[in-house]
Amino acid sequence: MSKLVLEISMSLDGYVAGPNASLDDPLGEGGEQLHEWIVGLDAWRERHGLDGGERGADNDVVEESLARTGAVIMGRKMYSGGEGSWEDDPNAGGWWGDEPPFRVPVFVLTHHARETETKEQTTIAFVTDGIEAALERAREAAGERDVLVAGGANVAQEYLAAGLADEVHIHLAPVLLGGGVRLFDGLRPTLPALELERTIASPAVTHLRYRVVR
Amino acid sequence: MSKLVLEISMSLDGYVAGPNASLDDPLGEGGEQLHEWIVGLDAWRERHGLDGGERGADNDVVEESLARTGAVIMGRKMYSGGEGSWEDDPNAGGWWGDEPPFRVPVFVLTHHARETETKEQTTIAFVTDGIEAALERAREAAGERDVLVAGGANVAQEYLAAGLADEVHIHLAPVLLGGGVRLFDGLRPTLPALELERTIASPAVTHLRYRVVR
Repeated sequence: MSKLVLEISMSLDGYVAGPNASLDDPLGEGGEQLHEWIVGLDAWRERHGLDGGERGADNDVVEESLARTGAVIMGRKMYSGGEGSWEDDPNAGGWWGDEPPFRVPVFVLTHHARETETKEQTTIAFVTDGIEAALERAREAAGERDVLVAGGANVAQEYLAAGLADEVHIHLAPVLLGGGVRLFDGLRPTLPALELERTIASPAVTHLRYRVVR
Repeated sequence: MSKLVLEISMSLDGYVAGPNASLDDPLGEGGEQLHEWIVGLDAWRERHGLDGGERGADNDVVEESLARTGAVIMGRKMYSGGEGSWEDDPNAGGWWGDEPPFRVPVFVLTHHARETETKEQTTIAFVTDGIEAALERAREAAGERDVLVAGGANVAQEYLAAGLADEVHIHLAPVLLGGGVRLFDGLRPTLPALELERTIASPAVTHLRYRVVR
């Protein structure tokens, strides 16, 4: 059955964005280090129209995730950078350009209504009525495949606190950011219990898969 | 050559002690979950005078650490619980009883001078002149073996911030504590760069070994 999966890259000190993150710089200072492990991989490069990436354990993890995922939920900041690009330019592509790498339906949580857009193989819907509504629509779109919550931290925290997440997949980057946005904050008194299901390691990153115990 | 190694169990949300930690309850609420992975292991039980523990990957990691370690540095709170037990009772055994499991020289960082004690195979010295003095004495005691900083968080942070640590060994427990004492806090602007050297995984814990890059 379809699961709700949180998947995100995190620093060893728990940050998913560095200090001084903003709409214009959503990863903050040093935050690009969180994703160094993925940008050279074959599966990632293929999704961005590039050839010739690396294969191996990290690439297998990414391919597995892509194959499992039938719909993606993300926050507004993760979707669209630039203070002006959202309301001023209805055709703004956000961070993801004219050929978004998702190739499954994407649901963006936002307070501002906007028409659904289709860009190449990706349809982007904007959901203004909360995380449960977004999940319902994403589940319908995903069918038997999983629904992925891709971030940012606030959206992931809302799904965890509401007890809706089935799995948490952390890509633990070997870096300390020292400040910024922490993934696991503000969860008391609704702390989920976790069971470690799988660890896959490479020199670049540690892939941790946890099941949320109910 | 002898290395300075920080080794500590940490929750997925970055805590090495839970909320409301105190001298009487140094692990805080839920903090005992950080060490669930170790208490049943053969190597740990043997050091506590018990038979019949589990063997396997986790036990191998503990045995390797014990074999490498020639001296241990720890903070005052990690050594001795109980507000009254320190100054009022010069023979207080701290948390570690009359047969401490270390069996190598231990150096406790404290503001209060106290005579060196010997308990079975463990000698405990109390160092009042700071982390560099403690390290010098520990290195001398350790010889070719490593010096282990066992915690707590403040002591680990001081060695990291001073650029004295060579390796960081994290036992990442699959638990969220939601509050307490975070290992990696207050390190900016002296954030160390890390290189992931090794990951060893079991269902109970993920053992991460990082080299500090200089």
